[in-house]
Amino acid sequence: MSTWVAVPEGSGFGIDNLPYGIFAPPDAPARVGIRIGDQVLDLAAVLDDTVFAAATLNPFMAQGPRRWADVRAQVTDLLTDECHRERLEPALWPLPSVTLALPFAVADYVDYYSSLQHASNVGRMFRPDEEPLKPNWRHLPVGYHGRSGTVVVSGTPVMRPHGQTKAPDATAPSFGPTRRLDIEAEVGFVVGVASRMGDPIAVDAVAEHVFGVVLCNDWSARDIQAWEYVPLGPCLGKSFATSISAWVVPLAALQAARVPPPVQDPTPLPYLQGAEPWGLNLALEVQLNGTVVSRPPFAEMYWTPAQQLAHMTVNGASVRAGDLYASGTVSGAERDQRGSLLELTWNGAEPLTLSDGSTRTFLEDGDTVSIIATAPTANGGRIRLGDVTGTIAPATPPTL
Amino acid sequence: MSTWVAVPEGSGFGIDNLPYGIFAPPDAPARVGIRIGDQVLDLAAVLDDTVFAAATLNPFMAQGPRRWADVRAQVTDLLTDECHRERLEPALWPLPSVTLALPFAVADYVDYYSSLQHASNVGRMFRPDEEPLKPNWRHLPVGYHGRSGTVVVSGTPVMRPHGQTKAPDATAPSFGPTRRLDIEAEVGFVVGVASRMGDPIAVDAVAEHVFGVVLCNDWSARDIQAWEYVPLGPCLGKSFATSISAWVVPLAALQAARVPPPVQDPTPLPYLQGAEPWGLNLALEVQLNGTVVSRPPFAEMYWTPAQQLAHMTVNGASVRAGDLYASGTVSGAERDQRGSLLELTWNGAEPLTLSDGSTRTFLEDGDTVSIIATAPTANGGRIRLGDVTGTIAPATPPTL
Repeated sequence: MSTWVAVPEGSGFGIDNLPYGIFAPPDAPARVGIRIGDQVLDLAAVLDDTVFAAATLNPFMAQGPRRWADVRAQVTDLLTDECHRERLEPALWPLPSVTLALPFAVADYVDYYSSLQHASNVGRMFRPDEEPLKPNWRHLPVGYHGRSGTVVVSGTPVMRPHGQTKAPDATAPSFGPTRRLDIEAEVGFVVGVASRMGDPIAVDAVAEHVFGVVLCNDWSARDIQAWEYVPLGPCLGKSFATSISAWVVPLAALQAARVPPPVQDPTPLPYLQGAEPWGLNLALEVQLNGTVVSRPPFAEMYWTPAQQLAHMTVNGASVRAGDLYASGTVSGAERDQRGSLLELTWNGAEPLTLSDGSTRTFLEDGDTVSIIATAPTANGGRIRLGDVTGTIAPATPPTL
Repeated sequence: MSTWVAVPEGSGFGIDNLPYGIFAPPDAPARVGIRIGDQVLDLAAVLDDTVFAAATLNPFMAQGPRRWADVRAQVTDLLTDECHRERLEPALWPLPSVTLALPFAVADYVDYYSSLQHASNVGRMFRPDEEPLKPNWRHLPVGYHGRSGTVVVSGTPVMRPHGQTKAPDATAPSFGPTRRLDIEAEVGFVVGVASRMGDPIAVDAVAEHVFGVVLCNDWSARDIQAWEYVPLGPCLGKSFATSISAWVVPLAALQAARVPPPVQDPTPLPYLQGAEPWGLNLALEVQLNGTVVSRPPFAEMYWTPAQQLAHMTVNGASVRAGDLYASGTVSGAERDQRGSLLELTWNGAEPLTLSDGSTRTFLEDGDTVSIIATAPTANGGRIRLGDVTGTIAPATPPTL
């Protein structure tokens, strides 16, 4: 199947991808678009449904999987059959001419901790005298709620946060800009179809609720986090910003990426056991100022997005259109597969060398981090998830 | 100052209170109302502003403190000057005739942990071999993000949640309904005016952003929480439901309740030091099936709502209209001032006896918990916050 739209070789945004986003043409309000190659198709202009005139994907996502499949089929037809070309070309906008916005209004944001390697590495560094994994880790996908109001779209500058930190040998905390600003390379899952309070979502029903996938960078101030996080978990060390892709790749585009997750031992409780495999063979890449510093393998994640959704709702908690839940930092077994600088530099002890010869432990002002990812397709090709990029802006002292 | 509306003696909802809520008259859409006595004034019917026709308080709250003061003055005039009586009476609805809804769309929900007594009690029970307070506790208001999608209005039944628990002597966790369902009596602060990312809110600017106050019951499944909460904090043990009052009492009604908080030792960092006192002398009362089981004193809270807001944003995190942040469980120094059953029964070891002769450790199906609170007024009277009530519905096994 091929499209009449010119798609650059290796773009990863061909006819088998078709991710959704929110874009604003010049001097026009934001609306729903689908990316094809380096252009955006204005859905409100070509399909007769007011949900595409909305400034968020939420109303469309709430329409559910049958509607998603229907629209995907329609758009695929429009972009493959030459007969539509004349009508559609005025509705195609070159990417550099448009502004991309946060693709959906984030309802609740939950961040998991589902990489065995990441959790083990963090445990070794933060709690060197204990077993790296807490006793609950292999029994449930450990996670916590993050701040949805500070989820920003890829490209938004990230200001170095101020906060309280305390060196181990200090008698009292001090206040200032973080000196351990870090990234977390994650994959985020976006809920479209709400559930009702009291009705858990079964592990095999994930595709009835989850619309698609973004990349996330869960920026973290390690020094603030280390001081604040007991006993209620991370808060200010994470809440200043979380960046996500401008493009939401529909689950439908990732069918060929589905793989069995790693063997789970011990066997999880029945509510976490599914019949269908929901591991995803996504290949991530973390770039720091253009140097590839890591290639985290998502297929190695211990807990799957299906298990995470089942766990999140097993107590009767409901989900809503726009809920975002992220995988937790994706780290593989090898050093160059770790998804955070904390792990890549072993808490700053082993600096990274970038291609310009400079070295890094944690992020410096002006640094740009990009996370990209690709997934296999049924025909042996690869599609690309929306990149997530951010540049560190210097801290400005709070006016108090 | 007195109103021409008939207000029952001791109601606490006289002319010096005037809390806001969302109500639906019979067969009519929900809109903004102000409670006076046992009636609701339909603001959309008497004031010329479409914000009052909204089904949430968010648009009105976003208008800011000058507008809030203006509307309060207008409504006070309308309800005190007899000349308005004839016009207003058709816009007054008896409370039993209307349906009350969640008063605002909850954006982010942060739950603090700001009672010295509560944090100490929990530390003694959950971590008996350690100092009850973690080293950070006296330096910053410890808090975490909760689930905003499961914040429900007072009166909503609360279903006993299922989840994973593990007894200390068990080799593996088991799954089932919580056996340690608890309450947390808290006071919640509702943000009206948003801030921008990167702009912290100074501790003395709380009244520029916070619209008003609700009571919260942060229902907690202690057995689920105890197993899941390391290292990222509580999640499923809390996320199934948080109940709040149907009425938001404006900060303006609580001026006479402001008191200096307890002495903070050590002196907090400068960003947590304010010129104005933001302790609040609220008297809470917890009723279990009609028996008063506790009278928590809010004036004893260690960290104030002004400090909590300053801390929440000092890293550059923004707030939005509809953000809710709660105090954490309010517990005083005396046994009968504790704000949770966990503390009142010392983790189940010392059951409570109710007025019907029955005893309780944690909540049983059918139990009703009500939290009420009053605050002093300038003329020596007392106003009442909106009650928060919930009845426990039996667990229904998840269909998996």
